[in-house]
Amino acid sequence: MKEYQKNLLWGTANMFNNPRYMHGAGTSCNPDAFAYAAAQAKKAIEVTVRLNGSGYTFWGGREGYETLLNTNMGLELDNMARLLHLATDYGRSIGFKGAFYIEPKPKEPTKHQYDFDASTVIGFLRKYGLNMKLNLEANHGTLAGHTFQHELRVARTEGYFGSVDANIGDLLLGWDTDQFPNDVYDSTFAMYEILKAGGFTTGGLNFDAKARRASFQPDDIFISHIMGMDTMALGLRMADKLIQDGRIDQFVEDRYAGYKSGIGKKIVDGTVTIQELEKYALEMGDVKTNKSGRQEYLEGVVNQILFG
Amino acid sequence: MKEYQKNLLWGTANMFNNPRYMHGAGTSCNPDAFAYAAAQAKKAIEVTVRLNGSGYTFWGGREGYETLLNTNMGLELDNMARLLHLATDYGRSIGFKGAFYIEPKPKEPTKHQYDFDASTVIGFLRKYGLNMKLNLEANHGTLAGHTFQHELRVARTEGYFGSVDANIGDLLLGWDTDQFPNDVYDSTFAMYEILKAGGFTTGGLNFDAKARRASFQPDDIFISHIMGMDTMALGLRMADKLIQDGRIDQFVEDRYAGYKSGIGKKIVDGTVTIQELEKYALEMGDVKTNKSGRQEYLEGVVNQILFG
Amino acid sequence: MKEYQKNLLWGTANMFNNPRYMHGAGTSCNPDAFAYAAAQAKKAIEVTVRLNGSGYTFWGGREGYETLLNTNMGLELDNMARLLHLATDYGRSIGFKGAFYIEPKPKEPTKHQYDFDASTVIGFLRKYGLNMKLNLEANHGTLAGHTFQHELRVARTEGYFGSVDANIGDLLLGWDTDQFPNDVYDSTFAMYEILKAGGFTTGGLNFDAKARRASFQPDDIFISHIMGMDTMALGLRMADKLIQDGRIDQFVEDRYAGYKSGIGKKIVDGTVTIQELEKYALEMGDVKTNKSGRQEYLEGVVNQILFG
Amino acid sequence: MKEYQKNLLWGTANMFNNPRYMHGAGTSCNPDAFAYAAAQAKKAIEVTVRLNGSGYTFWGGREGYETLLNTNMGLELDNMARLLHLATDYGRSIGFKGAFYIEPKPKEPTKHQYDFDASTVIGFLRKYGLNMKLNLEANHGTLAGHTFQHELRVARTEGYFGSVDANIGDLLLGWDTDQFPNDVYDSTFAMYEILKAGGFTTGGLNFDAKARRASFQPDDIFISHIMGMDTMALGLRMADKLIQDGRIDQFVEDRYAGYKSGIGKKIVDGTVTIQELEKYALEMGDVKTNKSGRQEYLEGVVNQILFG
Repeated sequence: MKEYQKNLLWGTANMFNNPRYMHGAGTSCNPDAFAYAAAQAKKAIEVTVRLNGSGYTFWGGREGYETLLNTNMGLELDNMARLLHLATDYGRSIGFKGAFYIEPKPKEPTKHQYDFDASTVIGFLRKYGLNMKLNLEANHGTLAGHTFQHELRVARTEGYFGSVDANIGDLLLGWDTDQFPNDVYDSTFAMYEILKAGGFTTGGLNFDAKARRASFQPDDIFISHIMGMDTMALGLRMADKLIQDGRIDQFVEDRYAGYKSGIGKKIVDGTVTIQELEKYALEMGDVKTNKSGRQEYLEGVVNQILFG
Repeated sequence: MKEYQKNLLWGTANMFNNPRYMHGAGTSCNPDAFAYAAAQAKKAIEVTVRLNGSGYTFWGGREGYETLLNTNMGLELDNMARLLHLATDYGRSIGFKGAFYIEPKPKEPTKHQYDFDASTVIGFLRKYGLNMKLNLEANHGTLAGHTFQHELRVARTEGYFGSVDANIGDLLLGWDTDQFPNDVYDSTFAMYEILKAGGFTTGGLNFDAKARRASFQPDDIFISHIMGMDTMALGLRMADKLIQDGRIDQFVEDRYAGYKSGIGKKIVDGTVTIQELEKYALEMGDVKTNKSGRQEYLEGVVNQILFG
Repeated sequence: MKEYQKNLLWGTANMFNNPRYMHGAGTSCNPDAFAYAAAQAKKAIEVTVRLNGSGYTFWGGREGYETLLNTNMGLELDNMARLLHLATDYGRSIGFKGAFYIEPKPKEPTKHQYDFDASTVIGFLRKYGLNMKLNLEANHGTLAGHTFQHELRVARTEGYFGSVDANIGDLLLGWDTDQFPNDVYDSTFAMYEILKAGGFTTGGLNFDAKARRASFQPDDIFISHIMGMDTMALGLRMADKLIQDGRIDQFVEDRYAGYKSGIGKKIVDGTVTIQELEKYALEMGDVKTNKSGRQEYLEGVVNQILFG
Repeated sequence: MKEYQKNLLWGTANMFNNPRYMHGAGTSCNPDAFAYAAAQAKKAIEVTVRLNGSGYTFWGGREGYETLLNTNMGLELDNMARLLHLATDYGRSIGFKGAFYIEPKPKEPTKHQYDFDASTVIGFLRKYGLNMKLNLEANHGTLAGHTFQHELRVARTEGYFGSVDANIGDLLLGWDTDQFPNDVYDSTFAMYEILKAGGFTTGGLNFDAKARRASFQPDDIFISHIMGMDTMALGLRMADKLIQDGRIDQFVEDRYAGYKSGIGKKIVDGTVTIQELEKYALEMGDVKTNKSGRQEYLEGVVNQILFG
């Protein structure tokens, strides 16, 4: 890797394909599978350290259930946390300085995965005191019913943004298609969130994408990566233009300005009582100060930036 | 209510229909709307106390966003927590002893609601230190991509189970149909979770359901409530039979038995090291102890109980 | 097969897995693939005749498109009909007396399949004058947004009901899970439609189902087939009870009784003019004769039959 | 209308909101409702003729069912055709020269509508010999599981393209949001199909769209219409550029070129026998002539055109 001046973005271990993980890895009902997973994660982290990887990602490919009829959800969640503690603590103990990532995905191949979406994973990490960040894939977000931008927004708002799998899905299909990104709206909104998060302070952009089955010629591998990366690059430039343009950010700034003074500031500062708010409401009579949310205007601004 | 020996299950306030809440209540960009919502919640809690209500429910009908283009998600989440703290603290201050509930719903009428599902709400309550329980509606769970049983299982596993809105939806339709429950599988699994949670230690069963548009005759109101309640009652009897039968519970007990001794117990007790697990795995060679998850057998047991 | 007194329900050919069919078989952009598919179908029909099969099924596994950007839909539809004409005409020419089936499926693995659902396939068969029937799979119906009962109802109403693949899906998952049927409501409604269609005048019930990945022990094969077949058998008994009970059929009979006399009969007989209908409506003033659709009552009747 | 030089695109009648249509209009179980609907359609067509409307659209808002338990699907379909025959014949008899449209929609408010999608409606029109065209709405297509481009492609391929309702939906929401179009990819692909259909030989573009609830100020009406119309106008320019550029059309032309000579031409001309195809296949050995479908390349071409 030195020879080609390449760095390892992150290491990982596949702990779901092999039959030994049919019931999960950290969440397996079988302690032997848990032990094997721990050993495999230990080795993969050691290799990542040796390759000077800047991150390590936990996929949760079978950390979930097929049917609640045979599942002890509480034990499985606790055990998943136990595995992650063992592995991340070990990583730190051998000098790994990079970020640990967990990658949300709601389902497939299992009926339900515990790493459902960004919000669910963040709740899990907080509950169990795990110091990890999120590696977000567009396609996993949409399978959970969210836009990719939503998942990124949640992660940056909560301080858990880490890295990005750029593969997209097809919103009319219900499985993980892992297509190369080709929609510049989506890449623009994704890059907007990443820029607002301060950029990739850890992590980066990776393609776990596959060219379609019928794109089977060798040059399709180049073409699809070029198309995908061009989409992300154009998204970055468009996101920068959106921010430079300033209309959207200013609109949001103005929209919440009421919380910077008066009763709004007291609400945010926590210095208001409910009695005071009631008195304020009674004197006000009714809310007369709502302004339009201007969704269509803002959508028009986006089109002006993208196609202007 | 005394006269008819009825008790109030829970009080609530509608803070989404009126145009003043077009941008949300606690999550409105307009502090005037926040203040109005606080006043309304205060009054509704007072009335609930006066009526001796055993609970108070927060619906989050517009606590979400229509477009991320105009949304400050961080401030909105913080403000939602502020409103809930103000209201629940006030309730306690005037002697309210009942449970405070929050009712998850992922969307509709808004594009996205912060109370997405049980996991998301529990994460939110933990983050902000709010002492509330969940009021779960079947239809809201399915709109979020979960079975009703899943939502109840999450809530009881995490210790947040509170109360139940029994309305169901149609899994092939993407909106909140609020139908009367008519599927005994679903009511059995729901009642199974409720029994396992120790029953309704707070809360109860309520129907926020509507007879279909074409069921417009006065007796349809009776018929639909009778059908819905019969479905839940039959579900309760079937859930009890499932538990008395014991095969399913015993299967789950046996399935995770490996965590009660040996390496499994050490994993659960937190006394194992990752080095020890690696050694164990290397000696083991590969996982040879997996047993079938028996999903089809267990589904057959359910049918035997229901139709036997 | 003679030895074991088994008969072949239907023969078929897999014309989608092999890379030669990456662009479809009858709908391939490559005439070589079309020719290969024709040869393969010819052979499979010959084998079916030799085995005295009572039917022959065309799966349309890749008869669709991945992207409209590279697709000539008109030519593909015409060619699909050409292949079916060639194959079915050939079958008749060598003495095949059984039914030809086409199996609707909306998607997976392709983005879109031309055999989308029962209605779409029936429209296609009528347009191209193809004498085939439908082999309906529950899971394919639900992927297209329909209940299995809907697909069967459409097929029997239009006179195209043929055979049944009993595999079910999970309505909260967006791919073809091919699970063994375990829901007695669904099997009851399916069997009700089949009985109303006069039973299996051709075709039969087959399981293209798979036990879940974790149900890997040899006896799971028996258990899952037993559970699946028991579900269908119980559905048949329940459907018969529904019909014997008579309440539902009588309700439907009464509900449309207005079309048996007076203005209703004239509408059905085609002897009414629009002027006459207008005159009738003006004299009537407004519609005062609507009665409740009694959905909840009928759902209650179903539960009484199933659990009574 | 003369005064302002406006022409009426199409007339219609709302035959679903009023309680008289609770069971449908043409598909009502009540002949009185059928008669009322016929009278209403007669009047609306007369008014359309008087206003010199260039089309008349049938919405099927409740032409479907809520539950199959109370539904006679065969009679309902026949009656829907009877109403359409009565109404369209009457229109012609009073000199209406414009197009009659039917607007597909799969569901909402009913559980299932007979006008499910373009393919289903075309099959229905053919079966009953109705001379009508389709008025396609983007949002209805996506609710049925199709892209808008798919619906337009089906309609033009089958010769049933008529007019367009430009409202879009949100693919992550399951109801008819009727938003103003804001995605230039979608408007480009829609306009591409319309141009390929020869443009609007009948019909035109209409917005049945609504600004979002929070876009309540008077100028939002202007802004949203401007944004929506700009999106369609930009789509038209981009579609024209796509066609002028020629790469995509040429790719499709080349992809199917095999059907213009040799065995391919014989397949299309219907002069080939299945024996001949088998002989051809056997000599060929296997298909060696497949070429990549180039999906990612074509997606890149689209981005070059849109953002070049």
